[in-house]
Amino acid sequence: MKNDSTFLRACRKEATEYTPVWFMRQAGRYLSEYRAIRKKTSFLTMCKTPDLAAEITLQPIKRMKVDAAIIFADILLPLEPMGIKIEFSQGEGPKILNPVRNEQDVENLRIIEPEEDVPFVLEAIRKVVKELDGKIPLIGFAGGPFTLASYCIEGGHSANFIKTKRFMYQKPKAWHLFLDKLAKVVVRYLNAQIASGAQVLQIFDSWIGCLSPYDYNRFVLPYSQKVFQKINKGAPVIHFATGTAALLKLMQTAGGDIIGIDWRINLDTAWEQLGNNVGIQGNLDPVTLFAPLSVIKERVKAILKAAGNRPGHIFNLGHGILPHTPVSNVIAVVNMVHEFSCR
Amino acid sequence: MKNDSTFLRACRKEATEYTPVWFMRQAGRYLSEYRAIRKKTSFLTMCKTPDLAAEITLQPIKRMKVDAAIIFADILLPLEPMGIKIEFSQGEGPKILNPVRNEQDVENLRIIEPEEDVPFVLEAIRKVVKELDGKIPLIGFAGGPFTLASYCIEGGHSANFIKTKRFMYQKPKAWHLFLDKLAKVVVRYLNAQIASGAQVLQIFDSWIGCLSPYDYNRFVLPYSQKVFQKINKGAPVIHFATGTAALLKLMQTAGGDIIGIDWRINLDTAWEQLGNNVGIQGNLDPVTLFAPLSVIKERVKAILKAAGNRPGHIFNLGHGILPHTPVSNVIAVVNMVHEFSCR
Repeated sequence: MKNDSTFLRACRKEATEYTPVWFMRQAGRYLSEYRAIRKKTSFLTMCKTPDLAAEITLQPIKRMKVDAAIIFADILLPLEPMGIKIEFSQGEGPKILNPVRNEQDVENLRIIEPEEDVPFVLEAIRKVVKELDGKIPLIGFAGGPFTLASYCIEGGHSANFIKTKRFMYQKPKAWHLFLDKLAKVVVRYLNAQIASGAQVLQIFDSWIGCLSPYDYNRFVLPYSQKVFQKINKGAPVIHFATGTAALLKLMQTAGGDIIGIDWRINLDTAWEQLGNNVGIQGNLDPVTLFAPLSVIKERVKAILKAAGNRPGHIFNLGHGILPHTPVSNVIAVVNMVHEFSCR
Repeated sequence: MKNDSTFLRACRKEATEYTPVWFMRQAGRYLSEYRAIRKKTSFLTMCKTPDLAAEITLQPIKRMKVDAAIIFADILLPLEPMGIKIEFSQGEGPKILNPVRNEQDVENLRIIEPEEDVPFVLEAIRKVVKELDGKIPLIGFAGGPFTLASYCIEGGHSANFIKTKRFMYQKPKAWHLFLDKLAKVVVRYLNAQIASGAQVLQIFDSWIGCLSPYDYNRFVLPYSQKVFQKINKGAPVIHFATGTAALLKLMQTAGGDIIGIDWRINLDTAWEQLGNNVGIQGNLDPVTLFAPLSVIKERVKAILKAAGNRPGHIFNLGHGILPHTPVSNVIAVVNMVHEFSCR
């Protein structure tokens, strides 16, 4: 039954009765019930308390008919047991208190044992899978090696990734060691998520779009490829990043059953580049959710038209739902996608 | 003589003895002689004092053999006489004190008379042209309508352009009026720069890469096109933006003799999309200038190889020179480009 869900069939590029849809950050600040928990609980506590993480994961499922759930967690969680000290302060992004500066810092990082080091994520997955009871699949996820490295080196989010690129250019040996370690951790973490019940995986290598194709190919692709090769078979994997209009073929070479794109390229243009052997997830601009319904409707239709009923399209935004997004518009998009794509 | 410079011939897509090179923000904070002036003078005073602006424009010319000068100014200067109040504080980006919020705000903006409203820019151009004495051409410039609008609406630089896009979606009438006004101002401003002696123009529509092709086509392209159509003939125009791997054909439709690209697409891929009727400027990642010389050399060669001696290649970075960039590496790139491209 689980394997027959619309979402999983789309991941396998089989025909579906309608286009499945879910949203990155569908369990997030735009939901009042999320804010109610966040108000009295720190972000890390939310992530590390399986009952809370499970509850938050299910919040959007109770509100709208999305075709998949995604476990509530943060891509930085597996970095902590590696030895990275992270602070999540309200309003701002995460801060790394001991940024990675050189080869010694990289050598000091541990390879994690997920069942011991991030048991709370796996426990939350088990709880959610039980609750969902096969109705829709659960997506597990991890950050991609480049994106994780960039947080560790920059000390947080970055506008131009200068420190990361300088590290890459100036300390290539340390860089390669670092990405290799991160790839190993990501593989272990994702395989543990599959073992705990996640039926689909998504790799968020969100920030690779800052790189030239030349640098992505040389400094990142081999490690992403290693991740895709070593993930246990059976769970389809979505390879997501932003700003990748000129990186799509390289992302495909790295791996993934579905390539997740942002809104900065037309979906049909992306599919022409990639060919029909791979699915595509996307690609509504998250800001469109602030537009009047007539505008939203036009864009949803344009995306479905660009996908042209090809098997393997999963409807999503081009990046996460933004805070303050009107919930009613999110619900409306779910219904529009189901209605307009009904074969 | 002026018209026979390597740079102008490349702009006309004629054969040249080597590939010309200049850098966006070549007169900037990475130069100690620039910082010496900046230390005792506000940024706006630097822009508004023709002697100082001319001196700063010429600083890099004295240091390295770039093939063009670009007038020292800021894209926001013509907004002030339109009625936008701008504050340039040290370290941070510009702040708009009266952001544009609605149609009334747009209606209140004036169309400028450059000779009366920004005489200092034109005077600086005349001074520089006289100093250069025909040795290399001077580039005049303006922001593109979208990029100028985004500053006015966001109130400064933005990470995700939410306010700008919300304005665009929610107040289309005010948006179209706003971009039409900005296009008119840009045309007047650029034509006044030509009249003052600028021999090449560059339009910095730096932030259009945040838009979907759908939105660029509908909300921006018609106004950029108007700008290119109404600029007086005779001065080649470079159309520059970042993050445009999937917008290049639309940028070309809008106009420009040369399309300026960033590093996130291979130069040969871009040229395949655009065809040989247009030149390309670019496209070294500015962060590469922090790399060891051996890495820089490899990248410069890769870009020249991708350009493949096609007439119409102008070497540049993919965006402006960053503060703290080693001057010696900038000089080295100029020499490498001249040496490696020598036919």
